[in-house]
Amino acid sequence: MTHTPQTSRLMQQMAFVLEADKLKTILRRTYLLDGTSHENTAEHSWHLAVMAITLAEHSPQPIDTLRTLKMLLIHDIVEIDAGDTYIYDALGHEDKAEREQQAAQRLFGLLPPDQQAELTMLWQEFEQRATPEARFAAALDRLMPLLHNIHTEGRSWGEHGIHAGQVLARNAHIADGAPALWDYAQTLIQDAVTRGILAPEPLP
Amino acid sequence: MTHTPQTSRLMQQMAFVLEADKLKTILRRTYLLDGTSHENTAEHSWHLAVMAITLAEHSPQPIDTLRTLKMLLIHDIVEIDAGDTYIYDALGHEDKAEREQQAAQRLFGLLPPDQQAELTMLWQEFEQRATPEARFAAALDRLMPLLHNIHTEGRSWGEHGIHAGQVLARNAHIADGAPALWDYAQTLIQDAVTRGILAPEPLP
Repeated sequence: MTHTPQTSRLMQQMAFVLEADKLKTILRRTYLLDGTSHENTAEHSWHLAVMAITLAEHSPQPIDTLRTLKMLLIHDIVEIDAGDTYIYDALGHEDKAEREQQAAQRLFGLLPPDQQAELTMLWQEFEQRATPEARFAAALDRLMPLLHNIHTEGRSWGEHGIHAGQVLARNAHIADGAPALWDYAQTLIQDAVTRGILAPEPLP
Repeated sequence: MTHTPQTSRLMQQMAFVLEADKLKTILRRTYLLDGTSHENTAEHSWHLAVMAITLAEHSPQPIDTLRTLKMLLIHDIVEIDAGDTYIYDALGHEDKAEREQQAAQRLFGLLPPDQQAELTMLWQEFEQRATPEARFAAALDRLMPLLHNIHTEGRSWGEHGIHAGQVLARNAHIADGAPALWDYAQTLIQDAVTRGILAPEPLP
């Protein structure tokens, strides 16, 4: 294989594809539904994409499913460098934006310039929740960890001393992207309190 | 939340989304690039979807990227019931089609009928490599395990006694979906033989 401009473009694309493998080793706080292990960010991203295919009709505005899927597939790829920041970790959130910005530059920078620009814009669109697609994608990104907690008896909430007020506050923007899913989520949160797997108030 | 037809549709969709979590526990023969563990099928599906976004231009015919992504995201979901069948396992392939057909009926059958029909057709399209989208998706599904082997010193090939003739034969259909990627793959296979991480001939 001689190195024409075309093969060098392919080599850049392959460098990105190979680097992406590392997302499979980034662990999140959530547990798999069977409780056997923590979830990693690659499989989390896959799950959100499957949710988008299945639940797209619950966006209050029609959405471009292709753009939504692209966004979800790459929304957390910066964690390869920046790590996963737990949503209830106030300290970690102080420098999250800066760490992730640097990661986006390095990781998307492996690609040819046109693709770097496209994926960087999609990632920013997701972060800013600026469009119906981004708001819907962000709603799924919040809903799934809730479901994981519900179906593992609130395990991750319990480990981190999370109470219902925090869960309601941090997840309220599900309503912006998918009101029907927020109705559903609120019912689940209420049930979790009733069943005693989510503390109603902060511990004294 | 009262059970209107709409919420019951949502409950069917959520049953499918929750069941999909199990794909994260289905292990493949391939190792992650860092060699720490086997890859699971959920993260494999994510990786192929990221490849499709990155490499779509290498399809010889223009493809519908949305349909390609949907196909890749669900192409292996049947493994939740049917398990992963290693591509060099001749015995496992004898009843693979039947096992996977039953799995597709149960898993996609969790969804509302219109979505069951859509995903079942996408899954069949992928299996039959009947369209440019399916042939491109299938090319990625072959290319990635090759890359995993190359970058882990042929570990999985070595463990299963695979030689270059088998690798060339089982992966040749990459050429149908993406000729440029097959050129690239052949170079890698040749390099692997030269470097001594892939046996050129069957062991005596």
